[in-house]
Amino acid sequence: MSKGLVTRSRILDRAVEWAAQHGLEGLTIGRLAEELRLSKSGLFAHFGSKEALQVEILRTASARFARRVTLPVMKAPPGEPRLRLLFERWGAWLRPPLSPAGCLFISAAAEYDDRPGRIRDHLHQLQSRWIAGIGRAAREAMELGHFRPDLDSDQYAFELFGIVLAWHHSVRMLETPAADSRAHRAFQRLQADARLASA
Amino acid sequence: MSKGLVTRSRILDRAVEWAAQHGLEGLTIGRLAEELRLSKSGLFAHFGSKEALQVEILRTASARFARRVTLPVMKAPPGEPRLRLLFERWGAWLRPPLSPAGCLFISAAAEYDDRPGRIRDHLHQLQSRWIAGIGRAAREAMELGHFRPDLDSDQYAFELFGIVLAWHHSVRMLETPAADSRAHRAFQRLQADARLASA
Repeated sequence: MSKGLVTRSRILDRAVEWAAQHGLEGLTIGRLAEELRLSKSGLFAHFGSKEALQVEILRTASARFARRVTLPVMKAPPGEPRLRLLFERWGAWLRPPLSPAGCLFISAAAEYDDRPGRIRDHLHQLQSRWIAGIGRAAREAMELGHFRPDLDSDQYAFELFGIVLAWHHSVRMLETPAADSRAHRAFQRLQADARLASA
Repeated sequence: MSKGLVTRSRILDRAVEWAAQHGLEGLTIGRLAEELRLSKSGLFAHFGSKEALQVEILRTASARFARRVTLPVMKAPPGEPRLRLLFERWGAWLRPPLSPAGCLFISAAAEYDDRPGRIRDHLHQLQSRWIAGIGRAAREAMELGHFRPDLDSDQYAFELFGIVLAWHHSVRMLETPAADSRAHRAFQRLQADARLASA
């Protein structure tokens, strides 16, 4: 990598941490430059605007998510085993060491749900694709006979997403000691219902 | 009400809206004063500090939540009917007209989960009490024979919370047209499982 790319990647690493902790809006180029011992104009030159830096932060975080969650999950056998790994990897993503300050996407959604613009559009696309991907994985499980044929795969994705949101909230905000076991039990129940013949 | 109390309540009404839209941290006394055509020092005199104003915003929002959700729910017959009303009222709370910019508590949790201090403590207490209250309502449903005797009521509360978080996220961020019907179907499944005799 050229020196410019190394610096750029060092800036983004720190900026992702920062954004997860203080929010993507809370990011100030001045303080980030100070921490990285760069000049404000030097840091600015790498991205051009605060918004462009915020979008790059989301891109960096989603490349990490792909490396840590999506790609390993796509290598698992399709159907139920893949969905089980997806749940485990997603749970690991929410916390240290992968996300020391919690999931950037969940906190950014709370920040940007009512701020129309480029960042919200980017987040919307990332999250919609991820949820659609879960629906597809559930349809594969149906085709393979792991899940019942009348399962509503988008409903499954909605409910799985809810379990993960409650898991994140219980770990980060409520500090519920039983958060992990509750999330796992909820997931077991979702799987059991997806497997069962319909009533 | 004295003139001071009227002004204070006018400030808080506007501040709650603001915080739901821009975040509790995004609140600036200067801009709030400008909007309300008050002097900054005049507004400051009502609360003493930004943090005190933030805590009052949470108190105001939780008094509204009590009026719109908790109190009507406590008047419903205990057991399953009460939990059904709780779900409906909570869902109504998440959106206009009750919450034009979404649920302040959910967005504040994303902001404060890693900011130790008075605001986080206050939020933690509000949310923990609410979840504990759902657990108690589920235990009443067990005592009344509406729910199976071996239900884990705290697990029930965790899962109900997950459905509501996914509902909020689907309405606010993903703009999923089917959000309401998915949330209702997930709730039906939770109720059906709570009613069933254990396997």
